[in-house]
Amino acid sequence: MVNTWEELAAKKRAQLAASLPKEWLVPDDKLPPAEQNDVTTWPASSGWFTPEELKITESTATELIPQLASGALSSEAVTRAFCKRAVAAHQLLNCLAEVCFDRAIETAKARDEYLAKNGKPIGPLHGLPISLKDNINIKGLDSTVGFASHVGDPAASDSALVDVLLAAGAVPYVKTNVPTAMMIAETINNVFGRTKSPLHRGVTPGGSSGGESALIAFKGSCLGVGSDIGGSLRIPAACTGIFTIRASGGRFPVRNCRSGMPGQEAVMSVNGPLARTIDDIETYTRAVIGGEPWLYDAKCLPIPWRNEAVAALPEKLKIGVIWSDGLVQPTPPTARALRHTVEKLKAAGHTIIDWDPVDQAEGNTLLARMFVADGGKTIQHELNRTGEPLRPEMAPYGVATELGTADMWKLHLERSAYQNKYLDRWNAAGIDALLLPTIPFNTVKHGEFEHVGYTGVYNVLDYAAISFPTGLTVDKSVDQLDAAYKPVSESDKKVAASYDVETMDGLPISLQIVGRRLEEEKVITMCRKVLSVL
Amino acid sequence: MVNTWEELAAKKRAQLAASLPKEWLVPDDKLPPAEQNDVTTWPASSGWFTPEELKITESTATELIPQLASGALSSEAVTRAFCKRAVAAHQLLNCLAEVCFDRAIETAKARDEYLAKNGKPIGPLHGLPISLKDNINIKGLDSTVGFASHVGDPAASDSALVDVLLAAGAVPYVKTNVPTAMMIAETINNVFGRTKSPLHRGVTPGGSSGGESALIAFKGSCLGVGSDIGGSLRIPAACTGIFTIRASGGRFPVRNCRSGMPGQEAVMSVNGPLARTIDDIETYTRAVIGGEPWLYDAKCLPIPWRNEAVAALPEKLKIGVIWSDGLVQPTPPTARALRHTVEKLKAAGHTIIDWDPVDQAEGNTLLARMFVADGGKTIQHELNRTGEPLRPEMAPYGVATELGTADMWKLHLERSAYQNKYLDRWNAAGIDALLLPTIPFNTVKHGEFEHVGYTGVYNVLDYAAISFPTGLTVDKSVDQLDAAYKPVSESDKKVAASYDVETMDGLPISLQIVGRRLEEEKVITMCRKVLSVL
Repeated sequence: MVNTWEELAAKKRAQLAASLPKEWLVPDDKLPPAEQNDVTTWPASSGWFTPEELKITESTATELIPQLASGALSSEAVTRAFCKRAVAAHQLLNCLAEVCFDRAIETAKARDEYLAKNGKPIGPLHGLPISLKDNINIKGLDSTVGFASHVGDPAASDSALVDVLLAAGAVPYVKTNVPTAMMIAETINNVFGRTKSPLHRGVTPGGSSGGESALIAFKGSCLGVGSDIGGSLRIPAACTGIFTIRASGGRFPVRNCRSGMPGQEAVMSVNGPLARTIDDIETYTRAVIGGEPWLYDAKCLPIPWRNEAVAALPEKLKIGVIWSDGLVQPTPPTARALRHTVEKLKAAGHTIIDWDPVDQAEGNTLLARMFVADGGKTIQHELNRTGEPLRPEMAPYGVATELGTADMWKLHLERSAYQNKYLDRWNAAGIDALLLPTIPFNTVKHGEFEHVGYTGVYNVLDYAAISFPTGLTVDKSVDQLDAAYKPVSESDKKVAASYDVETMDGLPISLQIVGRRLEEEKVITMCRKVLSVL
Repeated sequence: MVNTWEELAAKKRAQLAASLPKEWLVPDDKLPPAEQNDVTTWPASSGWFTPEELKITESTATELIPQLASGALSSEAVTRAFCKRAVAAHQLLNCLAEVCFDRAIETAKARDEYLAKNGKPIGPLHGLPISLKDNINIKGLDSTVGFASHVGDPAASDSALVDVLLAAGAVPYVKTNVPTAMMIAETINNVFGRTKSPLHRGVTPGGSSGGESALIAFKGSCLGVGSDIGGSLRIPAACTGIFTIRASGGRFPVRNCRSGMPGQEAVMSVNGPLARTIDDIETYTRAVIGGEPWLYDAKCLPIPWRNEAVAALPEKLKIGVIWSDGLVQPTPPTARALRHTVEKLKAAGHTIIDWDPVDQAEGNTLLARMFVADGGKTIQHELNRTGEPLRPEMAPYGVATELGTADMWKLHLERSAYQNKYLDRWNAAGIDALLLPTIPFNTVKHGEFEHVGYTGVYNVLDYAAISFPTGLTVDKSVDQLDAAYKPVSESDKKVAASYDVETMDGLPISLQIVGRRLEEEKVITMCRKVLSVL
């Protein structure tokens, strides 16, 4: 007998709940009250964690790695601490989809034994717990990616990325929640429900890698992996004030990951790290690329980490600034953070030019057309298998018309022409990077996300892009919407209407820095330069 | 009034004929008799060329470049010599599609002036004439790619490749004939007709870069550029006993070239050099990659020439051999050349293993499915514009059914799984290269080409592959078809039935060496190792 989608979803939620060890489940009376929005302060004040657990989980990956490599910290202790904090995160934020704590602790013990026996770490991520987005296959765990149809369909083998991470010494321990098909900019689906931000439980941690961003911002993970096809790494990073890099296709392995739209290749889905520091982003990038992922995944490019690319960067950068993409204007805090950053960069001697956003709309439209080129059939097929309804956030997939292959080829031509036009402009301007908002706001209240255009253009272009927190936060005393504000589009009007400075007060503001295609090393270094002036 | 396709084709042929300067047209009484098959000996014996013209045109690119760079030879003299010989080649072989002699000589003079003024060459290909396949846009020239519909539609600008070549100092002077849409393994179309091999005018120079291979084998060009989506560089190189490299997608620029199936991306069309020596292949590869083509074409990868990849090669290689792909068996000369090469490699201390061809059939089928995924609509559209009939060699495009985008995505998944399976096998075997036939025979009589499977698999895989002449030639005294021969397929039966050792006697035999994806530097060096034992 086939289950209904509701039955499958309920079964999956029950399985997840049952998989959380009792010893790590926070008792009800220790949980913060439901009306407490900011729960980032709760771990330290709760008394639920030991000082050692707090010390470990408050550390960054780059701080933990040398201690793990020297044996000053055991992988088992570090792994147990993050497992415990991840369980609490899930209770507060609904951020997990799967756990493999037994395997994680077993792996951690093996790391400790290896170190004891060999006197050296197994790899650059020796003993470090790493959280993974739900779509990254771990043997024996489901990768539902929000579809009831994928419940009870465990992965037959580890994904190429997990193979590379394990070879580097990492310890996978949880998989994190995503929106349906990973095609919503918040994190909600019909199986696991909605994930909340630990900075304010009334706002979204973004999507689609929002389980990751919530978990990392709560310090239930110091280093996680998400994916990005239209902004799905950068949007959640921006919503929670953490870092990510959207690498160009071919730097990080994607083989044996579950896609929301399997086989769609007109715009490449990539995965990449999320963390609280740029150091951690670089540590991950060097480790995975150093693991020669092209030997694991035919889609990877044999390009090692290139110090020479960094060395070739000029001391003073030339940066193009997109103040608004002309489609949705940044809300006051984001506009202020951009002005502030530009002023600081200028003061430090960098050259800043205004980048005409004339091509942003076309990039946006191309992305939207590529997403629904199959007429939404691939997604509808997964829903039909269990009768699961299409979520309202995904309405475009319900009304799309299949393009057909001949017209798809024409769309490829339009996209390639767009890529070349952007390349020509970049060359002519002689810029090193673009600086722009990651999203038009700092974040939004649940259900109010609008416009992925600031990120999506760079998926179409396959450029290397980082979302970074500016260190600035929303300040209701200065970030009121200007009385002179005039909307430039329907989306813009919605964004302005939903802007609630009282809710946003105190939350972090992020920006995006973009390099050319396959300039991951450079964009990390350029981001450091920007951070150094802030 | 719209012209019929016959009128357009006749007009185009008349234009081409009129564009050939009278001074370079060989008078009828100096032409070899129609029944003379091998015309490679004619230039030297004809008395039509001066000793200097002969000396120049008998040289390789690598021999000419230092003389051009030092001023020992003027670019104008070299360019005029190749223009003259190319005209003769066309009279004998029907190998040209377009000429731009005036521009070429103007460019050559500018090179000479630059050298005189600056005392140094403008770039690594300073003053060197380079021939280009018809699809590579040169401003003001048509790129018909064999379609009547493209007659009278001159390119608005030079292609990215021409930009890079010009920056390197090269001098484009002719464009060469192709089959319709570049989708036939011989060179014939309804506009220009059929191109013949200079080694034997009764056999094909291969396709689709057969105008190039014929011209180069005749020494009407020392270095030319073709393209390859299923073997279109390697097949003509093998048919005429010259060299080529099919580089992986992203090494050489393709922007603003005319494709036979524009926007088709499931398997990438690439372009690359054809020449008489491996030195010339390396010279071209270094020059184009050194020109940073990624600044010209968004599809190019920022991977410079990597000496370190060559340095990492072991002294003794491990090579897998495909004796037969299981679909079409090599004819006796090709089988003999492969046995001979393997024996010589073994004697030199290289490790040879048999490679089970179990996966070759699937690669073949995938390629065929990707070619017709649009139901042949794109090609049919070009034909319909003028009423031009579909050529019989392209029958599959006339009966194909459009896949649709959703099913196209599924086909992408099959292809990616295939690529990963091959990668895993390659890793497990620990080989450096594969050695196999380029085509199942040395060449064939016009109209008898069958089976692109030996090349096409590596287009699906996007591997770096070289076709090289073994130095062996067909010998009718030893290359008779074995009485015990048993066909393994219908194609195999056809190939055996059309095998005519009397016609082939004395013609060169080529093989193919294949490296991993994006291992161009390595496969060139590995090819040198193979040549050194032959």
